[in-house]
Amino acid sequence: MGSFVATWGERQLTRALLRVLGDPPVRVELWDGDQVRTPAADPDASPKVRLHDRRALFELLYRPTLTFGDLFSSGRLTVDRDLTDVLDTLYGRILSRERARGPLHDALSRALAHRPRANSLNGSRDNIHRHYDLGNDFYALWLDREHMQYTCAYFPNENVSLEQAQEAKLEHVARKLRLRPGETVVEAGGGWGGLARYFARRHGVRVRSYNISGEQVAWARERAREEGLEDRVEYVEDDYRNITGTYDAFVSVGMLEHVGVRNYRALGAAIDRSLKDDGRGLIHAIGQNVPRPPNAWIEENIFPGAYPPTLREMMGVLEPFGFSVADVENLRPHYARTLRHWRERFEAHRDAVVDRFDERFARAWYLYLSGSISAFTGGQLQLFQVLFQRPGCRALPETREDLHADA
Amino acid sequence: MGSFVATWGERQLTRALLRVLGDPPVRVELWDGDQVRTPAADPDASPKVRLHDRRALFELLYRPTLTFGDLFSSGRLTVDRDLTDVLDTLYGRILSRERARGPLHDALSRALAHRPRANSLNGSRDNIHRHYDLGNDFYALWLDREHMQYTCAYFPNENVSLEQAQEAKLEHVARKLRLRPGETVVEAGGGWGGLARYFARRHGVRVRSYNISGEQVAWARERAREEGLEDRVEYVEDDYRNITGTYDAFVSVGMLEHVGVRNYRALGAAIDRSLKDDGRGLIHAIGQNVPRPPNAWIEENIFPGAYPPTLREMMGVLEPFGFSVADVENLRPHYARTLRHWRERFEAHRDAVVDRFDERFARAWYLYLSGSISAFTGGQLQLFQVLFQRPGCRALPETREDLHADA
Repeated sequence: MGSFVATWGERQLTRALLRVLGDPPVRVELWDGDQVRTPAADPDASPKVRLHDRRALFELLYRPTLTFGDLFSSGRLTVDRDLTDVLDTLYGRILSRERARGPLHDALSRALAHRPRANSLNGSRDNIHRHYDLGNDFYALWLDREHMQYTCAYFPNENVSLEQAQEAKLEHVARKLRLRPGETVVEAGGGWGGLARYFARRHGVRVRSYNISGEQVAWARERAREEGLEDRVEYVEDDYRNITGTYDAFVSVGMLEHVGVRNYRALGAAIDRSLKDDGRGLIHAIGQNVPRPPNAWIEENIFPGAYPPTLREMMGVLEPFGFSVADVENLRPHYARTLRHWRERFEAHRDAVVDRFDERFARAWYLYLSGSISAFTGGQLQLFQVLFQRPGCRALPETREDLHADA
Repeated sequence: MGSFVATWGERQLTRALLRVLGDPPVRVELWDGDQVRTPAADPDASPKVRLHDRRALFELLYRPTLTFGDLFSSGRLTVDRDLTDVLDTLYGRILSRERARGPLHDALSRALAHRPRANSLNGSRDNIHRHYDLGNDFYALWLDREHMQYTCAYFPNENVSLEQAQEAKLEHVARKLRLRPGETVVEAGGGWGGLARYFARRHGVRVRSYNISGEQVAWARERAREEGLEDRVEYVEDDYRNITGTYDAFVSVGMLEHVGVRNYRALGAAIDRSLKDDGRGLIHAIGQNVPRPPNAWIEENIFPGAYPPTLREMMGVLEPFGFSVADVENLRPHYARTLRHWRERFEAHRDAVVDRFDERFARAWYLYLSGSISAFTGGQLQLFQVLFQRPGCRALPETREDLHADA
């Protein structure tokens, strides 16, 4: 191990690592310039992953998922082309085999899948603070300017801008909820308040929006004041479990991922308490097809406490209260598009990010955005919009025809 | 008990029965003409349920759900107006309280919900025979003439006929599946084969349709011959678990209700075996919001072995195989409309039904149709169309806009 040159054993360990990944068509360049590749790899054309030091290999062998992110962030692992393409190639063969193996195996996976940090009232505040209070200026660098939406946009076609697609998403949600002027809406997890402002301005409703990120709430209040919406939009710095009042509509866009499966019933109870008899509700959240633990590196470094539920698990919010699911739409490809826009803007402001944080942070976020594109493209992650109403209620029309009619 | 006159105790028991139902605004007329009513009932205007003999009351007290149907079928219990309205009034207050009471209670309900007759290969054949082999002529009396659809229709608006709405349903399913000419489709539970014929004729696909009802298969083959579709439509008298071959699309309309939750994984395995990599699938089935045992009288008399799953339970077909849910639509109000059409036609041919079977059979089916209208109107039953594809697959377009565009 003392020599700089990679040993026969080290090359064998590299091959073993690639075999675990299903022998994808990639080349690994070791620290001494030596190349190890899978039978499927083209010696000249396949993507190349470079390990810059010997320890990197042993760290990868020990905890592959967690370590890949750390090595990439610190520059000890580099790639020779678009990171998303490399990730697609590296992990594609594992993902294509993703499915259940048997009831026992499934039960075990499900149990393991639900071990992220606890989202108690205090735990949630802590987890959310770590991610969303990185600074409003940081997010403003690369999110859409008008609505500051840090959630999946809706692309009516591939030519619309990010700004247009985020507004289209807000309009899509408003239409599904069939908002009428004068109605009241409660929002759980309001981000920078863009949905509340859009709903109030464009649909003439009054919105109360709950959020436990203090920085976001301050920003949202300021913006509402500027836009003269203070009388119609109220931002409350509190947990969804503390929602009070009754409303015509409940909406939550991009919060369920942070709730934790154990708290789904508490969320359902909050919705049940706050929704009028003819009320409508919509939950928009990242999900997955099969219950699997979240990526360890992302859980550790980017999104503590996050877990993308399966549709079956999401029903844990609604079924105990007899809510009737009216419509589910999967917007998976839209999230891949959204993320590509974000990454492009992020890279355009890379210097500002490095100035504010450091090189390691910029690389880590680039990996997070690239890996997410890969996950939504490959189908490891989904985006579910679930629309519901009370059991015998007829608040929603009988067909969806008018959803896509021009306004 | 020897006297014809109802005793004070019998009137009290009648009141107790009404209290269990949540004191709905109804009047009960006992065998001696004496009237018992709830505080909410209007002495002159509320619906009246007449019990024609003393034993009827005691049978109702012993097993209310099961007995109501028996008493109505035998004419020992009658009502003074539209049966659906009476059922809505009688059971409405119970249903509006339908929700979970706690995790333990829910688990128990779920366990009890899954006790209908087993749907093993032989059990299924037996259960299906009892319902679907009543005679093709019987169903032809009151189903739509063109497609013989014994499942929920789709009403683009309330003015279309049953024939138009059933064709609209078939077209709606075909569009969701994005069928292209020359593709192959496998159907599980094909009824009288109307979907297969429509898909072949209108969308130029080849369809293999599985069904274990011998009478239906014989009828479907005959009709396909008449229409010159033998080369594009194949009806197989076999169980969904025996499906062979691979296809571009899987479709099942109105079969899942007969599969039984215990067999969902076997159904998923059959779909997984038979779907190509870029295949699409659609399951259309009656469901419910909360797992509850099926109505005992219907289970016993009309649909042995049937159980309407919740959306969470339906995921038991898809999740183990990593299928990705693309779209769920709830057509509940459409089934109430469909059933009203069926009941109207059924009543128009009442004499033919009585001739073929007997008065009791005609009354029992009238109750079944009326009760089903009530269940779909009140939200006790739902109709889910679940569209899915393989995890990383992009066979389906990114928006649903074109689903409602004119053909």
